[in-house]
Amino acid sequence: MVKGGGQPLPTSTTLYHSSSTLMIITLLTDFGTADGYVAEMKGVLLSTAPGVQLVDLSHDIPPHDIEAARLAVARYWRRFPEGTVHVIVVDPGVGSSRAAIAVRSDGRFLVGPDNGVLSPALLLPGAEVVALTVPSDAAPTFHGRDVFAPAAAALARGTSLTSLGAPHEHPTLRRTPEVAREPDGWLRGEVIVIDRFGNAVTNLFGVHDGEVHIGQRAVPLRRTYTDVEAGHPLALVGSSGLIEIAVRDGSAAAVLGLARGTEVRIRN
Amino acid sequence: MVKGGGQPLPTSTTLYHSSSTLMIITLLTDFGTADGYVAEMKGVLLSTAPGVQLVDLSHDIPPHDIEAARLAVARYWRRFPEGTVHVIVVDPGVGSSRAAIAVRSDGRFLVGPDNGVLSPALLLPGAEVVALTVPSDAAPTFHGRDVFAPAAAALARGTSLTSLGAPHEHPTLRRTPEVAREPDGWLRGEVIVIDRFGNAVTNLFGVHDGEVHIGQRAVPLRRTYTDVEAGHPLALVGSSGLIEIAVRDGSAAAVLGLARGTEVRIRN
Amino acid sequence: MVKGGGQPLPTSTTLYHSSSTLMIITLLTDFGTADGYVAEMKGVLLSTAPGVQLVDLSHDIPPHDIEAARLAVARYWRRFPEGTVHVIVVDPGVGSSRAAIAVRSDGRFLVGPDNGVLSPALLLPGAEVVALTVPSDAAPTFHGRDVFAPAAAALARGTSLTSLGAPHEHPTLRRTPEVAREPDGWLRGEVIVIDRFGNAVTNLFGVHDGEVHIGQRAVPLRRTYTDVEAGHPLALVGSSGLIEIAVRDGSAAAVLGLARGTEVRIRN
Repeated sequence: MVKGGGQPLPTSTTLYHSSSTLMIITLLTDFGTADGYVAEMKGVLLSTAPGVQLVDLSHDIPPHDIEAARLAVARYWRRFPEGTVHVIVVDPGVGSSRAAIAVRSDGRFLVGPDNGVLSPALLLPGAEVVALTVPSDAAPTFHGRDVFAPAAAALARGTSLTSLGAPHEHPTLRRTPEVAREPDGWLRGEVIVIDRFGNAVTNLFGVHDGEVHIGQRAVPLRRTYTDVEAGHPLALVGSSGLIEIAVRDGSAAAVLGLARGTEVRIRN
Repeated sequence: MVKGGGQPLPTSTTLYHSSSTLMIITLLTDFGTADGYVAEMKGVLLSTAPGVQLVDLSHDIPPHDIEAARLAVARYWRRFPEGTVHVIVVDPGVGSSRAAIAVRSDGRFLVGPDNGVLSPALLLPGAEVVALTVPSDAAPTFHGRDVFAPAAAALARGTSLTSLGAPHEHPTLRRTPEVAREPDGWLRGEVIVIDRFGNAVTNLFGVHDGEVHIGQRAVPLRRTYTDVEAGHPLALVGSSGLIEIAVRDGSAAAVLGLARGTEVRIRN
Repeated sequence: MVKGGGQPLPTSTTLYHSSSTLMIITLLTDFGTADGYVAEMKGVLLSTAPGVQLVDLSHDIPPHDIEAARLAVARYWRRFPEGTVHVIVVDPGVGSSRAAIAVRSDGRFLVGPDNGVLSPALLLPGAEVVALTVPSDAAPTFHGRDVFAPAAAALARGTSLTSLGAPHEHPTLRRTPEVAREPDGWLRGEVIVIDRFGNAVTNLFGVHDGEVHIGQRAVPLRRTYTDVEAGHPLALVGSSGLIEIAVRDGSAAAVLGLARGTEVRIRN
């Protein structure tokens, strides 16, 4: 009699890492899911590190948009428990001479390409970085499956960072554009990302009152979306501390013609 | 949430089991995933309730579409085991005076905004509701991360509902539009949602034979899609008991010009 | 074609029978997530097989695109540990006379409609197939919830394949189109799928040098995307061994006008 895959479920669930909770591996890619690439990565992860808790963060990063991924990583990487392994694959240079790296920073691990997407963790003092050894049979177009997933599984199993590769001295760093202080006292920044709601997140921060100017248009700085009427624009301090421009129950990007790079100014 | 660097991994962490299974927290939002908002929520949940089983239900609810979310919630909330915590964040009024609530109904918990999206659970006799205390440092634009995720984690850890806030007497309720019975014996209803396949789900139910009329067009009521030829329209009793209008291997919404609110009639 | 049982499981070091790992059920559908259909399936799975590890593979298969799903399944199904249960629901014929089947192949289980989508597992020698018994109260439009999820949960709990239904002798098989060898020595194939990046995957394989021709246009066969300048086309051996056509930092489908079925030739 051929039985199904499992024994009857145990009455006392024993989990993979006996001394603590499940190990967590998170995934952020620009792969979408329909082609099966993410599925292949998950198969590798669950075969190599059985029992690990896989957590999808996004597979909908716009293709090759390293900057969008970097900003998402900045939001989440330290909110997960120490020991978490973050896999981040937005990698237009896959198969080129760009390094594949693994990072240990503030107790978390990150693996991904050395193209700046891991900068939020790399810029923290004490970050350790190694260049992953790329197996000779790795597909040159799919390091997610053949390099990053195996490295993440190894870290989740307790393999030391330094055993995965040699120290990597000068990783690629990307930073949010600097805000300029103008002679007349204004701060000049820009839109750094448009979110799903059409809100335009800027690089301006530390100001909680006044008016935000987009070209000749002035937008009031308020506390939350409902402080203006439906369809009206406002600025507010977003959930990561950056000033963002919104339209209540609408899309600021569409209504105000905003895009990444649009200049935004505020007087503080 | 974000811990300091250099701490060792915890050596033991309590798992939150209810008789041998992991506690389940499900997530439904209109956030998409690319911006990292859902990732932040997951970080909070897994840091606050380590070992919980996170289950993504959807992050693709159309932005601010409370009605689409309510209909999805109606489908799934009672299919999960008792003890499940459902987090539902479709919240155009975030930061306004609308309450943040938690509900206990039929043994399940739900947390989300008091805008009607939780109505399927609220309308069941015996539902208990509390207004969540909003921490003073909660971001006014992101209660998903700062109010709902912490409340869900607390419930998953066994915190009592009543310790999360004061009873909330008159939560906002939304109901599916009523069907009208016309003098000539027809039932008059409407399309309440268009699904991904272009099927138009109506509020009509309890009829299993006859013709459905959309304006002057009559569509036969059949058992399943393959009871008509490819490209032909039909009506059928959908998987939640409501009559829906479909086109085999096509989109009824596109072919028949249907949208939410389109009038549909049937004689019973 | 598909043989009955009699082949022993290959010796394996996987750990799925150990009490220390969770049973895995993966999900691939064309349902999207916003309508709550996938949520209903997950509720059934977690209610019937509590403690199982649910793994989303995709819900973004284009509606009714059996071929896209089949190609994704081919990529991932054997990468998961033995004992994994793969649920695959791309099912335009739901409710018709098409059978609902469960398959045991190479130590993994698959459940889904008998429309060819499970062919990668069915074509492996030793595959066993049963026709699932459809409960009389199953919704004719939603076998994902009422037939496939219960069958997957049963398999995950250790129910034998043969207890789920009678042997099914001639399942529907779909195969990747054959490559033709022309008298002049060229291999003539075609595009079988366009991926999210606009890469065109073909059915050509086993050639690692030369030029790929699309109509009158010749594209060089290179090792990886970065072997040409940005915006330039190339061909390469993709991560599953098939030749694909790409444009560096762009969409080959858009730039070169490629679609499923476009003829592609190579001289080997």
